[in-house]
Amino acid sequence: MNAPDDLARALPQVRQRPVPPALLSELAGRFGAQFSDGQALREQHGRDESPFVDVPPPAAVVFAQSTEDVSDAVALCARHKAPIIPFGIGSSLEGQLLAVQGGISLDVSRMARVLAVNTEDLTVTVQPGVTREQLNEEIRDTGFFFPIDPGANATLGGMAATRASGTNAVRYGTMRENVLALQVVTASGEVIRTGTRAKKSSAGYDLTRLMVGSEGTLGVITEVTLRIHPRPEAVSAAICSFPTVADAVNTVIQIVQLGVPIARVELIDANSVRAVNAYSKLSLREQPLLLMEFHGSPASVREQAETVQVIATDNGGADFEWAERPEDRNRLWAARHNAYFAAVASRPGSRSITTDTCVPISHLAEAVVATVQEADASGIPYFLVGHVGDGNFHIGYLIDPDDADERARAEQLNRQQVERVLALGGTCTGEHGIGLHKMAFLQQEAGSGGVAMMRAIKQALDPDNIMNPGKIFEWDA
Amino acid sequence: MNAPDDLARALPQVRQRPVPPALLSELAGRFGAQFSDGQALREQHGRDESPFVDVPPPAAVVFAQSTEDVSDAVALCARHKAPIIPFGIGSSLEGQLLAVQGGISLDVSRMARVLAVNTEDLTVTVQPGVTREQLNEEIRDTGFFFPIDPGANATLGGMAATRASGTNAVRYGTMRENVLALQVVTASGEVIRTGTRAKKSSAGYDLTRLMVGSEGTLGVITEVTLRIHPRPEAVSAAICSFPTVADAVNTVIQIVQLGVPIARVELIDANSVRAVNAYSKLSLREQPLLLMEFHGSPASVREQAETVQVIATDNGGADFEWAERPEDRNRLWAARHNAYFAAVASRPGSRSITTDTCVPISHLAEAVVATVQEADASGIPYFLVGHVGDGNFHIGYLIDPDDADERARAEQLNRQQVERVLALGGTCTGEHGIGLHKMAFLQQEAGSGGVAMMRAIKQALDPDNIMNPGKIFEWDA
Repeated sequence: MNAPDDLARALPQVRQRPVPPALLSELAGRFGAQFSDGQALREQHGRDESPFVDVPPPAAVVFAQSTEDVSDAVALCARHKAPIIPFGIGSSLEGQLLAVQGGISLDVSRMARVLAVNTEDLTVTVQPGVTREQLNEEIRDTGFFFPIDPGANATLGGMAATRASGTNAVRYGTMRENVLALQVVTASGEVIRTGTRAKKSSAGYDLTRLMVGSEGTLGVITEVTLRIHPRPEAVSAAICSFPTVADAVNTVIQIVQLGVPIARVELIDANSVRAVNAYSKLSLREQPLLLMEFHGSPASVREQAETVQVIATDNGGADFEWAERPEDRNRLWAARHNAYFAAVASRPGSRSITTDTCVPISHLAEAVVATVQEADASGIPYFLVGHVGDGNFHIGYLIDPDDADERARAEQLNRQQVERVLALGGTCTGEHGIGLHKMAFLQQEAGSGGVAMMRAIKQALDPDNIMNPGKIFEWDA
Repeated sequence: MNAPDDLARALPQVRQRPVPPALLSELAGRFGAQFSDGQALREQHGRDESPFVDVPPPAAVVFAQSTEDVSDAVALCARHKAPIIPFGIGSSLEGQLLAVQGGISLDVSRMARVLAVNTEDLTVTVQPGVTREQLNEEIRDTGFFFPIDPGANATLGGMAATRASGTNAVRYGTMRENVLALQVVTASGEVIRTGTRAKKSSAGYDLTRLMVGSEGTLGVITEVTLRIHPRPEAVSAAICSFPTVADAVNTVIQIVQLGVPIARVELIDANSVRAVNAYSKLSLREQPLLLMEFHGSPASVREQAETVQVIATDNGGADFEWAERPEDRNRLWAARHNAYFAAVASRPGSRSITTDTCVPISHLAEAVVATVQEADASGIPYFLVGHVGDGNFHIGYLIDPDDADERARAEQLNRQQVERVLALGGTCTGEHGIGLHKMAFLQQEAGSGGVAMMRAIKQALDPDNIMNPGKIFEWDA
């Protein structure tokens, strides 16, 4: 097992398995113009938003347009025991789509149809390349919406594969709670269905939840059935500044413990506010800030807001400002979603080493304050944002990718942050997944017995280790 | 593959694997007074609430008092490749704990301590033998409660193992949503932990959700970490009678589609009302009835109740009656929870063949009405109850267990009901699990590819097939 900083420097997991020329010509024959081994496309498909920049790209890219395409591509790779790596939009943060063992990138972004909208059942079924914004655009007139919103406009297949969440999870849950059923192409190219459109089921092993978060290592998701939610009758948003992050976090802890059904409560620190102001042309007060949103009936929204305002004031909150008009709210939330890009832009040429810890809510202040102290002491530019209602917060260390020492120090800070939250009963990743970057952390968190169980499942379902190999844990077929 | 009615008649899955005398003496040596091979205890541990009465009991019973006990018992059985069947309180409905391949019953009911109450994080950690009522009793003074409530006062380990739910699931989710983390003894006797106390995580495969609903076939649950919920500020309950089940169901469909956050909405048909009146000394109007409960702030409860009352009246609802006092509410819900026992008592000597279908909400009226028509035409005494807010409903056919023809006709009706809901996008089991009784249905629902994937996982995690073998699907080591 290599520590993450060794990986970041030397990428020892890169062990390119040779892709047989026969596979490339068979794929070219089957897929024609949907196949490419051009350098530019390969490089585009060999890079994500992770801090890794030196991994060789995949040998070729296949653009799937149907489940049959996916099945055929997987079956051909299976015959040649060559790796195949699903690709949505390239927004993963932990190296999930990097071709560390070579192989074929399977781009599903052209599988972008909304297949069924069943508002009367509060469900939709989509192809994996549909993005979250596209889905909400397509169901805009139905009175329903899909709440899960990672920062990027990610594909729903990718979001299912990494068990993504975002700002609305505190009220609406994550992809774990919102994926009802899947169509999956297995490692042999077989097409199976998991789950049904019924809201609950006790029918055997929960294959849906096993696939959600498996990062493409157990199969390729080719259809996703999702829960949608009635658009709330009333929506109200507010921002509030605090003297310190501790004051902001203590406000959140009390909101959650009181059971206020707040829809969103996001922390952004002063560094993030500065970056967001510059990037999104805003003039927010450059102090730790909570962005909040309340959903419900007009009366319920008023009740929630009153309760929260009292708690915030008790914790030193100032400038409690309401954003009632949709356009004001949208500007605020767009700014929040752009915080990552704003921060990276604030140090030109940088890559972000983004942490993703999540703790039981009572330990949130302790975890955040200690992490911020270390980050401040390091001198490395950083930003902090958090889905704090869930106990989830990210520090992004904005490193110069060519500065090995800075990278190593950022990774060391990442490690300290993870060790702290594991000791507090938390997890190393709330929503970004393990990918390449957190394999050592998963060992610490799940223990050798837990990882051994994951490995046994992988071996059973993908005996030749062709499905996105080298991710989540080390294993050789 | 045998159809369920063949199973019910002939129990062809009964293939007792001999339990080596050496295992029995090793268990007796290790466990002393916690071990018994007495006939009465064996028979008690070889019977549940399923319609199967002819399966030979396990060879012996071990009463575990600690995780170490469980680990040692499993390790001894593993060494001798003998089946081991976890036992909570014996309330399973589908034959989950029957010793169809012989072996040892592992009774965890003495592991009944609440290990941690973390109200500030909205979590508790319990041993698997703690029952749902015991948990709520122990946290009564904290202002929190645990909402999942199957009819029986089941153990929380058993509820996790069957992915149970109940009347509150429409608002609070099922065991799938409310189990955060587990301690599990694997088929080799190793102790692992899955999940953490953090509210969300993307750390590798979701082993917690894989174990929840695996019915003891992948490991023995030895600790359960659960979400608890703040006791609502205001609670209000109501009953309302309807001319037909269709009117009642249409009311529910509209409530759900409008997004009313109702906490409970239960249907009981006229047969069930009659049985409940007799059993619980009540005088409810003997018509289809909805029992409802609203949770929230006083204003929100009022809003919900007003909306629902309008919908109910539109659908012919009469006698909308409020139960404001806790003792009245408790009496109503106790009556609902006793509906199963009341119905079985209404035909002395009967066993219930209980169906458990669940459909997307828009198909609920269609599914219920067709099922009731068939049940009425059959002449077999039956009752209908449903967690209709989730699309889940049960018909219980009250059969004479010695009447093979009646049993076969009831199983045929069960099959027709399942085929109908599968065609409507539903599931054969909302909350009772597959056990012995629904293995053929699981094949239809998940398809051969889905069941093959489950079997591959079973083989990987329990290669000698010792963990509750012969359940969920057919498989031989």
